[in-house]
Amino acid sequence: MEDIKIGLVGLGTVGSGVLQMLTSNQDKIANITGRSLTVKTIVVHNIDKPRTVDLTGIQLTSDLNAIMDDPEIQIVVEVMGGIHPAKEIITQLLQAGKHVVTANKDLIANAGEELATTARDTHTDLMYEASVAGGIPILRTIVNSFAADHILEVKGIVNGTTNYILTQMQQHGRSYEEALQQAQKLGFAEADPTNDVAGIDAAYKMIILSQFAFGTQLSLDKMAVTGIDNVQLDDVTQAAELGYTVKLLGVAKRIDDGVFAEVAPVLVPSDHPLATINNENNAVMVTGQAVGETLFYGPGAGGLPTANSVLSDIISESKNIALGTTGNGFNNYQTQTQYADPADILYPYYLSLSMPDIPGQMLKLTQIMTNIGASFKQIVQTDGPEQRAKVMVITHAMSKAQLAELKIQLAATDDVTLLAAYKVLD
Amino acid sequence: MEDIKIGLVGLGTVGSGVLQMLTSNQDKIANITGRSLTVKTIVVHNIDKPRTVDLTGIQLTSDLNAIMDDPEIQIVVEVMGGIHPAKEIITQLLQAGKHVVTANKDLIANAGEELATTARDTHTDLMYEASVAGGIPILRTIVNSFAADHILEVKGIVNGTTNYILTQMQQHGRSYEEALQQAQKLGFAEADPTNDVAGIDAAYKMIILSQFAFGTQLSLDKMAVTGIDNVQLDDVTQAAELGYTVKLLGVAKRIDDGVFAEVAPVLVPSDHPLATINNENNAVMVTGQAVGETLFYGPGAGGLPTANSVLSDIISESKNIALGTTGNGFNNYQTQTQYADPADILYPYYLSLSMPDIPGQMLKLTQIMTNIGASFKQIVQTDGPEQRAKVMVITHAMSKAQLAELKIQLAATDDVTLLAAYKVLD
Repeated sequence: MEDIKIGLVGLGTVGSGVLQMLTSNQDKIANITGRSLTVKTIVVHNIDKPRTVDLTGIQLTSDLNAIMDDPEIQIVVEVMGGIHPAKEIITQLLQAGKHVVTANKDLIANAGEELATTARDTHTDLMYEASVAGGIPILRTIVNSFAADHILEVKGIVNGTTNYILTQMQQHGRSYEEALQQAQKLGFAEADPTNDVAGIDAAYKMIILSQFAFGTQLSLDKMAVTGIDNVQLDDVTQAAELGYTVKLLGVAKRIDDGVFAEVAPVLVPSDHPLATINNENNAVMVTGQAVGETLFYGPGAGGLPTANSVLSDIISESKNIALGTTGNGFNNYQTQTQYADPADILYPYYLSLSMPDIPGQMLKLTQIMTNIGASFKQIVQTDGPEQRAKVMVITHAMSKAQLAELKIQLAATDDVTLLAAYKVLD
Repeated sequence: MEDIKIGLVGLGTVGSGVLQMLTSNQDKIANITGRSLTVKTIVVHNIDKPRTVDLTGIQLTSDLNAIMDDPEIQIVVEVMGGIHPAKEIITQLLQAGKHVVTANKDLIANAGEELATTARDTHTDLMYEASVAGGIPILRTIVNSFAADHILEVKGIVNGTTNYILTQMQQHGRSYEEALQQAQKLGFAEADPTNDVAGIDAAYKMIILSQFAFGTQLSLDKMAVTGIDNVQLDDVTQAAELGYTVKLLGVAKRIDDGVFAEVAPVLVPSDHPLATINNENNAVMVTGQAVGETLFYGPGAGGLPTANSVLSDIISESKNIALGTTGNGFNNYQTQTQYADPADILYPYYLSLSMPDIPGQMLKLTQIMTNIGASFKQIVQTDGPEQRAKVMVITHAMSKAQLAELKIQLAATDDVTLLAAYKVLD
């Protein structure tokens, strides 16, 4: 049986998981691919660091050339993370004729197109299933199973850290700060959690999902990205009373000829499938014109689930090597990128406001809503601190343009503060 | 751009959906595959029947040879259904060098291996994504994304008709007969619903899922198949009070070196993702050693969702034609089929019993449970008709062998009747 040798760059939890899966399932992999896949060389920063995985027969080195210059190594897995020097390394690997698998969402969201062009030019494969939603095989599914459908929307919970924090707030009445600390203690959040809690990580994943679903190339600076770091327990509790669960949702939606993409806290109806995705799990909902609503649920992170996605890429590349069909691109859907008009992006909103608890305040709010042509669906008023009232409103659908105008008019109103404005999923 | 001509055998809802999708999404398909895909010829029984789809430029005929003998037609979609003559037609098509797509679960469950061998021998493709769970792309996902994982279990709601009926019983307190009639009225159940309500349709799908997940070739006569035709509203209501939802679940599970496969009504905990799949929707849960629990949810039937799965096969075959890589098999995972030992198949059970409402009856039941080494977890007793009590029990996990012994001992007990025994999902 022909042997395909693999190199790894990085040996953290995902790299170790890849090694472990290749070893423990080698018979099945050989049965399916007709090839024997083995790791030959692993490049790490520190070769003296103690490792928990069995490295018998594997060369451990800090010299990338041990992979780059070895003609026997055909597939290289990059699991070091970060944009630099990962981008330069992958470029060099592709130019050296290596097929590459990466789990690096920051890199793919920022430089995926450029790297895909390099792969095409060098007739090599570049795949990155693990870059979105860990163990959920969503990218390959969009490529293979929705190619003939017109995808209308992709939305989901694509960041495990924030979903863990929001679940803890919702289910155990913890404050954001308490829930974050607990997530850090359990290893679900990093010491510096900014990338996750500010929504950047989810935004990168939505950029990649949009590439597959719509053929677009969105850029982070043109996306509205709001994290969960300002979500108040108050709002989570109030939302629950109104029948909603607060989730950090990535949404990418076709509106006429444009695409609307956003990451923000959203009120999801409690009987909606996405409301039941708890803790560190992820779920992606794909709505196609023909297929209707489909949902893919699974672990969003973790060494072995992510390694499973890396392995699906390795096996796909191995098949291409065996059939002589490498270099055909992971995602070949490309269209012109056009952003949707804010006047056409319609959602109901949850608004949380603080105002003095004196007569006439609600009239001000009602007047502003009337000015912008919007209307209320539900209003709840509770006592706030210091003789102020907290007013929570669910509006009928209004546009992003109306919302922007609402914010301007509220800011110009004495003593009324808009604490939060979250989309509501119908 | 190179043109790939397609033939259809059958033009019901799925065939019409395929035609519609190929027309309305032709630009995207061409963008992705680099090929223009068009339907040239459609074979139907009755060419005079009025059709709702646009057939401009398409040859409509009752003569199969119009496809068989046309060298221009490379891909043929069989959507006529039934085992004969579909099997003979597909065999002929493959032998004539045509690549075939089918949605025919009865055929694939019964003769899939034989047809796959014919395809391999003739270097043609035979694909059947639409045969399981309509619009959910589960087969290709198992092939492509779980190839390196050791799949432990595949379970799910794979029949829309029975799920619709059970949902109506649960949510609206309808009897089985009432719910069935309603399903027939709405087109969710056929005039003769036997194949669905007796669990046969779900069993065929579990046989196909097991081929992909475990590489086995199960046969229907060795599977335990129980339908929903004896499910009482009483049990559905009582299960709900105990925190469970009754679902017709297909389960295929590795137990040591064997596989346990069954279709039967199961009590699913109400907060379990499968309990939230309502009406005609389907969901398949795949548990892998590495990836953990994943769930795929979507429409289980319907013309366009099923057509989307057919299209995924057409596009996959078109890519293979373009790359010269046809004939490599849809599913290449094959292992020896071994059935699990009934003594090793452990589940808690829900038992529903009728017994005289007089002292000493519970003692008999307790004695039998003690005899077989099993124990109760929960007992509920209610008044039944004619001075009889209805006793509902949830047991701790017990084996299939213990359950069989329990049934024998209960049958030998005067005046105690076992009305139902359903697995309980932990």
